[in-house]
Amino acid sequence: MMVLEGPAANGMGKSIAGRLSCDFGKIEHKLFPDGESYIRMPPVIGDSFAVVQSTYAPSEKHLVELLFMIDALRDMNKKEITAVVPYLAYSRQDRRFREGEAISINTVLRLLADSGIGRLITVEPHRKEPFSSFSGKYTVIDPVEKFAEVLSERIKSPFIIATDEGDMERAKRLADLMECDYDFIEKERDPDSNQVSAVSSINSDLSGKEAVIYDDVISTGGTIELAAKIAISNGAAKAVAVASHLVMAGNAYERMISAGISEIYGSNTVPFSRCHVIDVSGLIAETLVSE
Amino acid sequence: MMVLEGPAANGMGKSIAGRLSCDFGKIEHKLFPDGESYIRMPPVIGDSFAVVQSTYAPSEKHLVELLFMIDALRDMNKKEITAVVPYLAYSRQDRRFREGEAISINTVLRLLADSGIGRLITVEPHRKEPFSSFSGKYTVIDPVEKFAEVLSERIKSPFIIATDEGDMERAKRLADLMECDYDFIEKERDPDSNQVSAVSSINSDLSGKEAVIYDDVISTGGTIELAAKIAISNGAAKAVAVASHLVMAGNAYERMISAGISEIYGSNTVPFSRCHVIDVSGLIAETLVSE
Repeated sequence: MMVLEGPAANGMGKSIAGRLSCDFGKIEHKLFPDGESYIRMPPVIGDSFAVVQSTYAPSEKHLVELLFMIDALRDMNKKEITAVVPYLAYSRQDRRFREGEAISINTVLRLLADSGIGRLITVEPHRKEPFSSFSGKYTVIDPVEKFAEVLSERIKSPFIIATDEGDMERAKRLADLMECDYDFIEKERDPDSNQVSAVSSINSDLSGKEAVIYDDVISTGGTIELAAKIAISNGAAKAVAVASHLVMAGNAYERMISAGISEIYGSNTVPFSRCHVIDVSGLIAETLVSE
Repeated sequence: MMVLEGPAANGMGKSIAGRLSCDFGKIEHKLFPDGESYIRMPPVIGDSFAVVQSTYAPSEKHLVELLFMIDALRDMNKKEITAVVPYLAYSRQDRRFREGEAISINTVLRLLADSGIGRLITVEPHRKEPFSSFSGKYTVIDPVEKFAEVLSERIKSPFIIATDEGDMERAKRLADLMECDYDFIEKERDPDSNQVSAVSSINSDLSGKEAVIYDDVISTGGTIELAAKIAISNGAAKAVAVASHLVMAGNAYERMISAGISEIYGSNTVPFSRCHVIDVSGLIAETLVSE
């Protein structure tokens, strides 16, 4: 297998190839003066390829670049292609709240399936349901064990908090691995302003505990801010945030710090340096060589 | 037919619907804090739709938004969909100069064909060859007659200049309509720096003539700058630039003015206000109701 690293791989292609001791190539990339992307494949070796390209912002550019790369490989008559998309954009646009809304994740998954890839690998999307209509082979990586391993070394009296009742399963998995309790806050999001507010709070006493607020994606930090305030008012000694994908839009970092978050943990699916980076390229490498 | 205007239509959807006296709807659009696009279709009427969305910069965002709109319409079980893409991005990435390069326009056309549209309408792409593999029905609008009509009123002693030997046919069409002579300059583009330089110049004497430099797309303005200088040194009384698509990257405008261009004409496929706008929505409207 040859691992090809796209311009939005955050260095993970090289790391994956290193772990697998396989061939590696960096895809040439530049921008034309009008902003369009130039993509050129390096000399390729063999018949089986993993193209690594995350789709953090600008999401649509990174997605379209990935499709250019796949087509360029197919133009070389290469057919065994796995797309590794560590952070899958539009994963949260998975439901129609109002008539006429685009369920954008369905389009993104259709584009990837239609591109003719043999397999899609991604790290913990917002929900798995949209994948049920994915016409190709796919693997969704759950990084929770890796997170538990790193967190267990640093957090001694953890208490896991999910930021949505629907995320309780995720929180429970982390809590089981860290051998601690968990609970959730229920939030409400205003569809116009995108502001979150608490609907129900946690009943647990967090005195002396280190609250570990666990989410899949941190975007504005609004949900984490809310959860941090609730945790602290329930007696938590400190509050840390953990997320698979640190999208960190706008002033999310400052907002979370102001709300009392003392540490942020996240994977390297999205480049964000002001956190404890948990490298998930090993999980991707293992997945690539598994069935 | 109902005309639906996307967020990158530069007002052309409304104009087209007005000319056809047909139903019109504006597609709701906003950006989420992380930069992802929100798309919501308005209440729709009937079974036949034209979705108007140009793909000027950020090209990939506008393209993906168009695919979201098409999928949202298809989710409503609407199948008769024409995509009107006045400016088609990546139209110039139509050849492989070096091994491994992506021929991006092929991917863009494949994405549009795979979306399940019944027809694609666009205004003068860089070349028509890539469309030969387009699996659906398409119409490429040539705005030259409209351009000749507007220019003839303002330019009294025209001399048309093509900026590439391959564009001579285009220049000849405009020259025939304006009943004047034409010639071309041959340029060379450095693939690394993207700088253009003249390989051969025009032999014609332009004394007393108004040079009309005619191109399909103006991006950096480098080609127009070169042609303007040549025209003026060959005696032209003035030099104007005409292009179907005024992409106008960076300081293209200032560059062209400094080179002696006195007027810029272009269509409204790309929003650019510092020019004589030639409205091509009438041509699109006519095309929509033709076979």
